[in-house]
Amino acid sequence: MKSIYTLALSALLLTGCAQKTSQKNTEAESKPATTNILGISYPMVNPDLTVTVRVNAPTADSVTLDLMKKYPMTKNADGIWEATTEPQVVGFHYYFIDVDGAYVSDPSSELFFGCGLMASGVEIPEEGAEYSLEQQVPCGELRTQMYYSNITQAWRRCFVYTPPGYDDSDTRYPVLYLQHGSGEDETSWGVQGKTDIIMDNLIAGKLAVPMLVVMDRGYAVDPTVKPTPGGGRRFAGFNTFERVITEEVVPLIDKTYRTIADRDHRAISGLSMGGFQATSIGFNHTDMFANIAGFSGVSPVTEENWSTAYNGLFAHAEAFNSKIKVLYLSLGTEEAERFGMVTDFHNRLTEAGIDHVYYESPGTAHEWLTWRRSLHGFAQLLFK
Amino acid sequence: MKSIYTLALSALLLTGCAQKTSQKNTEAESKPATTNILGISYPMVNPDLTVTVRVNAPTADSVTLDLMKKYPMTKNADGIWEATTEPQVVGFHYYFIDVDGAYVSDPSSELFFGCGLMASGVEIPEEGAEYSLEQQVPCGELRTQMYYSNITQAWRRCFVYTPPGYDDSDTRYPVLYLQHGSGEDETSWGVQGKTDIIMDNLIAGKLAVPMLVVMDRGYAVDPTVKPTPGGGRRFAGFNTFERVITEEVVPLIDKTYRTIADRDHRAISGLSMGGFQATSIGFNHTDMFANIAGFSGVSPVTEENWSTAYNGLFAHAEAFNSKIKVLYLSLGTEEAERFGMVTDFHNRLTEAGIDHVYYESPGTAHEWLTWRRSLHGFAQLLFK
Repeated sequence: MKSIYTLALSALLLTGCAQKTSQKNTEAESKPATTNILGISYPMVNPDLTVTVRVNAPTADSVTLDLMKKYPMTKNADGIWEATTEPQVVGFHYYFIDVDGAYVSDPSSELFFGCGLMASGVEIPEEGAEYSLEQQVPCGELRTQMYYSNITQAWRRCFVYTPPGYDDSDTRYPVLYLQHGSGEDETSWGVQGKTDIIMDNLIAGKLAVPMLVVMDRGYAVDPTVKPTPGGGRRFAGFNTFERVITEEVVPLIDKTYRTIADRDHRAISGLSMGGFQATSIGFNHTDMFANIAGFSGVSPVTEENWSTAYNGLFAHAEAFNSKIKVLYLSLGTEEAERFGMVTDFHNRLTEAGIDHVYYESPGTAHEWLTWRRSLHGFAQLLFK
Repeated sequence: MKSIYTLALSALLLTGCAQKTSQKNTEAESKPATTNILGISYPMVNPDLTVTVRVNAPTADSVTLDLMKKYPMTKNADGIWEATTEPQVVGFHYYFIDVDGAYVSDPSSELFFGCGLMASGVEIPEEGAEYSLEQQVPCGELRTQMYYSNITQAWRRCFVYTPPGYDDSDTRYPVLYLQHGSGEDETSWGVQGKTDIIMDNLIAGKLAVPMLVVMDRGYAVDPTVKPTPGGGRRFAGFNTFERVITEEVVPLIDKTYRTIADRDHRAISGLSMGGFQATSIGFNHTDMFANIAGFSGVSPVTEENWSTAYNGLFAHAEAFNSKIKVLYLSLGTEEAERFGMVTDFHNRLTEAGIDHVYYESPGTAHEWLTWRRSLHGFAQLLFK
């Protein structure tokens, strides 16, 4: 172990020095990405929002950067491979490096569970993004909550955001359930999503009421249920997950935390796959959730099953509007084509006279900035 | 992004299938490491405790596995590189892959902040390790605690373990401060160290009293202090860190949590660099800490400065023994040569008649199993 430790620590120190030099001499306005390992210079975000990535691979024949698209990297005299991307849209992007066919994460980046593995990520700063940056405001906590699931017969973990001052009073709080996307996990909203920072800032600015936020793991396998042949959309065991959330997690949270345990004070939402899950669970359990949202993902109701789906929930606009306090749908403008079902559903809801909020995140795609902005918007509508 | 998502998810599903086949046919007793990404077969831990690692790098010329030592990997007909290590000692080992000179983490592994970057890790199961495995016992929580440090003029994060039932009573608790090693960070004790699981099991078995455990970040830079030329051992700003812990973190924890805020009910400990820091801080602040431990690391007092170091703390055995409730030193038998200073210090303490506990972890080196066992041992001695 000694060699690895020593090497890595030397690298940490040396790179810190290299950073200062390069910033001073040649790239005065380029900045190391905030998603880099502390003290590491590259990836570097340039003023035109291009990103320069460097990889040390002295004997490789071919190195490619995969950041939204593939960029062949070129080797300099020191054996360092480099590529600069096209200008990027603001927000958080996963990326990978292909070294002679090995598809790996960049050792210069903090890694984030996404795409089904620990992925490199680069944050392109958003102007006016104070809402998702640490401010001088009281901070809540992110807590792990381990629980044994009788349904999956396994230990599971969720994260719970508690608002500032939770431990200093007997106040009871409403609860927002918030689900990650496919290939991500229960860590994603707390890390890539910056949920705690967004909520701290909203609460400090009195833009949102103090609430708990529960981020569970969106995969669940019931060992007593045979896998569906083919798997497909249901590979994650959506039915099982629905049971875990409604039969195990909600009761656990109501028992463990000081919640206001009624439907008006409960919301369920999620992104992409989690948006599909959250809306589907919400529509199935309006006795449990009066507030429902899908970010870049929704369990759509089609023209054909409009009056029958979810026990006729959508059949009568007036009944829906009096029952559901907030229905919120969102997507990024740059993913509109691929996720047209969200827009289609929004149009059908409008035609049917069903109250809802539809938000398009300007200039963002199927990525975390769309979802941070959606959380920021949705949370402000809740429990008021 | 679509391509990455789709690829990775397909890989997740396919590998899940591959796993079943290979286990059935050829490696009946080999098991995917518990540290792998869920559903990924390799690294595979074999019954003789060798580890087989596979890397997909079809066009690479040379791939090497670095797991305690370097193993050249060989390519099979499908372009998959494979190596099987020598038998490993039980416990948690960081490892890396060298692909044509690119030194990267293995995409098949969950990654762990260690060695100054996000490192692959493989867990070699320890027989009789129930103490560090989830059992059917009440679970505490791991909480993030963000705080603004006026000393470093930056936001910092620590993790706080709260014992089961913390929120259900008005009980006040003692506090153990627990520091990571060099190249690791405030996440390490909670992830690699399994602190929450070890404490849950100890408390459930009534082997340890319920306590809070605070895991802070061991690096601190005071922007008003000029860096020491050369850096060396003090690169992490040990003096600044000592100020952060004693002037900011301890008061923060006493203010935020229901602690018993006196020296008898406070302990400080750490591993490797953190052991150096913890003992040094503890010996400097016996007014604050009556319980002190160094795992595989200690701030040693030499023969020369025995009577003067730390304001003469070690000069009078009787005074020391009545003041310090627990002094605990440990190391693994396989690191004894490199960390002889721990044993030397233990011998000097014995000669001087200073009460302490000295523990050698059988068969383990400068690795997490030494430190999990040390936490397991030290925690049982505290606050009784």
